[in-house]
Parts: sequence; C-alpha cells; structure tokens
Amino acid sequence: MSKFWSPAIRSLVPYTPGEQPKVLNLIKLNTNENPYPPAPAVVEALHQFSMDRLRLYPDPEASKLKSALAKYHQLDEAQVFLGNGSDEVLALAFMALFRHSDPLLMPETTYSFYEVYCDLLNIDAVRIPLNSSFEIDLDDYQRSNGGIIFANPNAPTGIAIPLSRIEQLLAANTDSVVLVDEAYVDFGADSAIALIHRYPNLLVTHTFSKSRSLAGMRIGAAFGHPDLIDGLERVKNSFNSYPLDMLAIEAATASIEDDAYFKETCQRIINTRQRTTQALQQKGFRVLPSSANFVFATHPEQDAKTLMQRLRDENILVRHFTKPSINQFLRISIGTDEEMDQLMNQL
Amino acid sequence: MSKFWSPAIRSLVPYTPGEQPKVLNLIKLNTNENPYPPAPAVVEALHQFSMDRLRLYPDPEASKLKSALAKYHQLDEAQVFLGNGSDEVLALAFMALFRHSDPLLMPETTYSFYEVYCDLLNIDAVRIPLNSSFEIDLDDYQRSNGGIIFANPNAPTGIAIPLSRIEQLLAANTDSVVLVDEAYVDFGADSAIALIHRYPNLLVTHTFSKSRSLAGMRIGAAFGHPDLIDGLERVKNSFNSYPLDMLAIEAATASIEDDAYFKETCQRIINTRQRTTQALQQKGFRVLPSSANFVFATHPEQDAKTLMQRLRDENILVRHFTKPSINQFLRISIGTDEEMDQLMNQL
Repeated sequence: MSKFWSPAIRSLVPYTPGEQPKVLNLIKLNTNENPYPPAPAVVEALHQFSMDRLRLYPDPEASKLKSALAKYHQLDEAQVFLGNGSDEVLALAFMALFRHSDPLLMPETTYSFYEVYCDLLNIDAVRIPLNSSFEIDLDDYQRSNGGIIFANPNAPTGIAIPLSRIEQLLAANTDSVVLVDEAYVDFGADSAIALIHRYPNLLVTHTFSKSRSLAGMRIGAAFGHPDLIDGLERVKNSFNSYPLDMLAIEAATASIEDDAYFKETCQRIINTRQRTTQALQQKGFRVLPSSANFVFATHPEQDAKTLMQRLRDENILVRHFTKPSINQFLRISIGTDEEMDQLMNQL
Repeated sequence: MSKFWSPAIRSLVPYTPGEQPKVLNLIKLNTNENPYPPAPAVVEALHQFSMDRLRLYPDPEASKLKSALAKYHQLDEAQVFLGNGSDEVLALAFMALFRHSDPLLMPETTYSFYEVYCDLLNIDAVRIPLNSSFEIDLDDYQRSNGGIIFANPNAPTGIAIPLSRIEQLLAANTDSVVLVDEAYVDFGADSAIALIHRYPNLLVTHTFSKSRSLAGMRIGAAFGHPDLIDGLERVKNSFNSYPLDMLAIEAATASIEDDAYFKETCQRIINTRQRTTQALQQKGFRVLPSSANFVFATHPEQDAKTLMQRLRDENILVRHFTKPSINQFLRISIGTDEEMDQLMNQL
C-alpha cells in the first residue's frame, strides 16, 4: 500500500489468471487453451506480413477485421466492436454500459473477472446463485437491474443455456443491457448473435483465444446494436486508440477466412470432450454437462485440491477454485486425445 | 446517445488520433512515426517465432521484456511496468495514481489524451499555460495538487525541460506523483529515469512507437518505485491480465537488444531535424527548438490550416491543431531526408 495510490484502488482484489508456467513438457489443461495450432492461413499471413510496416500505427478501427467479422456473422460493421482480448472488451463494456444506479445482476458462480470489474469501477452487483444442478436459471434475473451479464456456456461449469430462454429474458428485460459472454460458444452452444437484430439491448462478446487458437495474440470482439457499439467506441477512444496491433489484425482476419479448419478443430475438441466425459464417469466422477472446451468434474471420494496437486506432481496442470460452493470440482481443459489419455492414466 | 450508456460516458469527448490513411504513396508526416523500419533483430525474431505457440496465453508479466528493459535502464524488474502502448500505460496510471481529491496539474498545451483520461475518470485538472516562449515553466507547478503530469519533450511543441529543473520540482513536490511522459526523449532530451532511485513519487513513461519504430505493435512502459509499479499492476490485473501479445513481447525484446541500430536511427532523425529546421527558417518559418522527432513551426504570413490543406492536396500529411493558442502552427514529423526535401519543394 502506498500513499500515492488512488484511494479507489486500495481495496482492489485483482483477477488471478491460471498459471502460465515457464517449464516445458507439461500437459497444460488449466487455462482452456486450444490444443491445436492456429489455422494454416494465420501462420501464412503472419509469415507474409512485411514487418517493415510495423513502424506505422495500425488502423485504429481495425476495419479489415471488422469487415471480415461482420460478413461472417451477417452483421453491419457498425454492429462490431474489437478489443485487446475479450477481457478488455468486457472491461470497456462494464465502463460504457453497466455504471448505473441499479445493480448489475450476475451469476454467483461464473467468470470471476466480472466481480473484479465491478470492484474496479465501483459497480454495485447482485450475485445470483446457480440452481441445485449448477445451472443459471434466468427466471431469477427478472428483477430491477442496471444490467445483466452471464457467460453462455457458463464458466467454470461448462453448462449452456438454450437460446429460447435467453430470448425470453430479453423480451422481458428491455430497459438495461444484457451481455452474453460467449467465450466458449463455438464448442456446442447456440450463439445469441442471431437475436441482435431484434433486441437493441443485447451485447454478445467473443474471443479468439479459445476456438480460434489465438490466446497468444489477444483479440476479442463484441456484437450488438450500433448504439451499444458506439458507446463502447467512445470509451475505447478515451482509453487507448489502438488496442489491436497490426499482427493481431492480420492473424484474426486470416482465422475468420479459414472456416473449414475452424469447424474441424472445434469438432475434434467436442469429440475429445465426449470421450473424456465418459472416461471420467467410468472412474466415478460426476461431470457436469459441458458445451465448452473444458469439463467440470467432482469425485465423491477424492478431495479436488489434493487431486489437483497430485496431477501437478505428474506435470499435468488442471484448475481448482477455492470458492466453497465449487471447491470439490476440478476444471479440466480439453487437450488432444493423447493428452487426455495421459490424464486418465494418472487419475 | 443511448439510454443504455452509463451516465458518466455521455459527455465524453474521445481522443482523436492523427489520420491513418488507407491510400498509398503519401508522405506521412502527421503522426510522428519513425521513417526507418524496426531493427533487423526485430524482423528476425518475428520470422523465427514458432506461430503454433500462439494457441497459448502469453506470459501475463511479459517477464522476458521486463527483464530486458530493467537491464537496459539499470533498474530492478519491480521498477518496470508494461502495457499495450504508452496510451494504455498512461490510462492505467491515471486510474491508479491520479484519482485524488486535489486536482491534477498539467500543461494547457500538451498531449491531448491527458484531458481525455481526466474526463473518462472524473479527475479534476488544472491546466497551466505555457510561458510566452511556449515552454513549460515548472515553477508554475509548485502548488497544492493530487499529481503532476507533463511530457518531456513536450508535444506538440517539441521543447525539452532540463533534468535539473525536473529534479527541483521533485525535491519540492514530495506528496504526489510526478509523471514524466518521455515518448520523445530518445531524440535529444535527458531521461528522468536516472532520478527514480531518489524520488519514490516519480513515474516515467516510454513508448516503442517512436524511437523504436514499433507503433504497429503497441508497446509502452513505465518506470518508477516498486510501490508505484505495484499500484499500476493492481489496476492492470483488474482490467486485462494479458495486454501484451506474444509477438509484441518478442519484437520489443529484440529491439532493446539491438542498441546500435536504435542509436543510429535516432541520430539520423536528429540530423534530419536540424536540416529541416534550417530549411524551414530559410523559408521564413519560426521553428520552436525541438528535441523530438517532429518540429512545430509557424509562418508569419501563411495560414497554418490552409498550408496543411495545400500539402494534403500534394499527398503530404502534416498535423494541424484547431486550439486557438497554437492554430497557426503545423506539427511536422521528421521523415527521411528525401521526404523532407519533397516537403520543402512544396512549401
């Protein structure tokens, strides 16, 4: 603590990302990275890029990528926002759209960065418990609010909400923004992007870090009504004009254009998830029904933290959360079939 | 304006960066980019990088770059902070260190993003006029404050403050942070980094966008006492854990390690600046004494805005500001000798 710190930051509890170890030869199933490399078109685009151009500023609008994403999702460019990873997109969305007098509603168990943003920006939040099946019940969100946010599929449970339930919420909740964080949507859930045309208060966020194998490049996006996007742009341009560097723009654009590779690698991960779920169940684990690139599993007789530590001793990283309601679960990212076989051998 | 926007953002006036035109064959002297490409070691490091690794998250601490910068400036790693361009570093510094009850002091004419941050973060600012020679007079900053920020060399004037004057201010102003934005310091001013060991309230920011020819990659840094850096890290980790992507870390580290190229290109720009200054003076311009990679010039008989537009018609971009106290000046970035010759031919 320093007397020079702004008073508002003294009580912050920053987000703790999963470990990024510097040793090699680990089986890394702790941060939901994709086991497959970026699309060949991405690698080609980066190798072809004339690095001398890096002396110039990037396009502050990243129009090339905006245009590719708009086309891909059948939207206008004015319905697309880009940022330095979906974490930055979310931070700017909290600033632009969630600082109201009524509280923000969010699941009690979800991506833990949401409560950090509330803390940073002094946003009052109501954290709504999951139901007894660890599901988000959107009926619980029909109350006075200054905004609603949830992840679909949710993290770290992996459970998806049917689109029809999200539409019911949107039809009932028209006076505040509903932000659906779709970081994991490509692994088996239905995207709410289809609802953007009908609901001007819907904002959907995506990331290139999971299904597009570009965690190392930091690219996130938001989709919504042009008025919401305009609000995000105002805040972004009051914070950092050029959050996406030239190579991130190149890599992300090439990724969007290689749809066959994208679909193939997503399907492989879905197949491995099903195989992993069955194998875990055979070992006595309860596995929540996942639509993401991870599974959330608990064993009736094995302490989760002890398991996590024993796997770590065998150079296999999985994620454990200390929060009491989920501290008997492990979140296990889906790797290759070979990696999951090695995990099963150790368990 | 949308009812969904947070009330605090409705009155924002975002920063307007210099134009990044999409047409080619322009002589681009409007955003202070470096006319020389990044160091050969940077290009080599990017070409050697195994793009398959991009599926993984980057090191959230960017330790490799922190270590290289600490060594270069003879600091500890705990005295180094990194961000997505110096704009993000500045935004996080305003959040972490300048939200106090007393007002922030800044020059009335300086980098215009400072006042945008104040607006975004609801920081009360006192804007202190330059003296009649367009210089920052630090005697004017010895008054009650919650922080002090200025650029050295200042923008858009290019005028540097001697280090002895900065040290006098630091010796007198011990209760708030003094942030010296050294975006242009490598073109002829003395860095205040040497004073960090003695003044725990000094924060110095640098960018890789100017002297290191990496505007396209978005890399900025701050240097200061570990307590100040810790405050910045807390805010960064409450906003976005991984602002620097893998390729930005690689490029910046390689740049630091190629010091000969760095010094050579800085010196070439200084030489061209001197040549340009003389040529402008011969044409009747008044040119402020610049220690940056641009000159700020005014002509007693030619309207600056008209000149800017005429140059634009000839495919030469320079920057003009509409602010009354400087609206008869042009800010001209230093390009290659050939580019400056073409500018002179048109003037």
